[in-house]
Amino acid sequence: MAKMSEHTYRQFDAELEAIRTGVLQMGGLVETQVANALEGLKTGNLGLLDRVIEGDHSINLLEVELADTCTQIIAKRQPTAIDLRLIMTVIKSIADLERIGDEAKKIAKAAKRLHAGDVPFAPRVELGYGAGLALDMLRSSLDSFARADISAVASVKDQDAEVDAYFKGVMRQLITFMMEDPRTITSSLDVLFIAKSIERIGDHAKNIAEYVVFLVQGRDVRYAKSAAAAAESKNTP
Amino acid sequence: MAKMSEHTYRQFDAELEAIRTGVLQMGGLVETQVANALEGLKTGNLGLLDRVIEGDHSINLLEVELADTCTQIIAKRQPTAIDLRLIMTVIKSIADLERIGDEAKKIAKAAKRLHAGDVPFAPRVELGYGAGLALDMLRSSLDSFARADISAVASVKDQDAEVDAYFKGVMRQLITFMMEDPRTITSSLDVLFIAKSIERIGDHAKNIAEYVVFLVQGRDVRYAKSAAAAAESKNTP
Repeated sequence: MAKMSEHTYRQFDAELEAIRTGVLQMGGLVETQVANALEGLKTGNLGLLDRVIEGDHSINLLEVELADTCTQIIAKRQPTAIDLRLIMTVIKSIADLERIGDEAKKIAKAAKRLHAGDVPFAPRVELGYGAGLALDMLRSSLDSFARADISAVASVKDQDAEVDAYFKGVMRQLITFMMEDPRTITSSLDVLFIAKSIERIGDHAKNIAEYVVFLVQGRDVRYAKSAAAAAESKNTP
Repeated sequence: MAKMSEHTYRQFDAELEAIRTGVLQMGGLVETQVANALEGLKTGNLGLLDRVIEGDHSINLLEVELADTCTQIIAKRQPTAIDLRLIMTVIKSIADLERIGDEAKKIAKAAKRLHAGDVPFAPRVELGYGAGLALDMLRSSLDSFARADISAVASVKDQDAEVDAYFKGVMRQLITFMMEDPRTITSSLDVLFIAKSIERIGDHAKNIAEYVVFLVQGRDVRYAKSAAAAAESKNTP
């Protein structure tokens, strides 16, 4: 390995700290985007929804910028072990954060359609519970990353199962609405897409939590269950 | 930079070639999964659909394995410039391939529900056109990666716009079906989710094509348009 001077080490540490902070800043922005999209959905504040839609491109650019910084650090510092794992975790996490940003934008667009005025037959479905869960998962996973602490990962996974069940419940309710009154179909589909976005935000937050396990323990746990299931099915005749 | 012997260089080349081949093998598997899911949807071959659903976990494991190999190569070989770009391209591409695999599984699950027998009122919507486009995009993007050739990237982007338009058309048709006969609502939603999956496969294929531009030209073009738009809006008072 290339030898580094004390000075170079300190610079390297500062660079790693900068990408760590970058993830948390990007995470904060994404969290605000999701919260604003949901707030706009609830209140019909079209200006707020427009800001969410316009705000997405800065999140996209932030991902490109951070990924680029990560590549430069690898090329310049030739990191190994935990340093390299941190950089890999950052690259993966910002991809999921970028996709959460996309979902916030989709929610804002659907919310605008629902509040457009010519939609008199919107189904009354409670989305706040699932939205709160997904936002909570996002906060927990970013917090786990910030503290390199995996103690919250199990509860994030439990919440993910809850969000999935919530989505199925919303879908059942929407089907009932649509069957009872076909005039609600178009707006029901928008509500369905919003619920789907909330479910996806939960999925991405769970991914980030699982990257923290990789960061701390050095192993990828995303498909631990499938791996175990695969091993099991091989053992079964 | 660490100095490498002739022998080490040859080993390094072999390792890079192995991950390159790994992406193409994983791509081939994912392509088969998508094609089989669509075939099962068309023919109602439940055994084929079950194989798609079971086959997804080996794709997930392949991603973990390839990502792990990439991390090891970075730690051991400390690659720079084009070698590092190749590894970064591989890491990003396999994440998208894994997600295409997820969509194939979702299509297979929805297809099973549609062919379950107790769904007498399935809407007759043509999905083959969009599915063919998305599969074609996937093949083109893998081919671009294999040849490190960006000449097909523009047409992949055009096809992506076509797939998006196709999805909107399917949705409009489905809304008509549901309004005319509310008994088709449940199965229409399954068809809608399948069309959405096809649209997402197109998105992921487009991502892979754009990573090839990064590989060849060394710049991330995914948000080139948003960057230009952002620069423009800054210039406008």
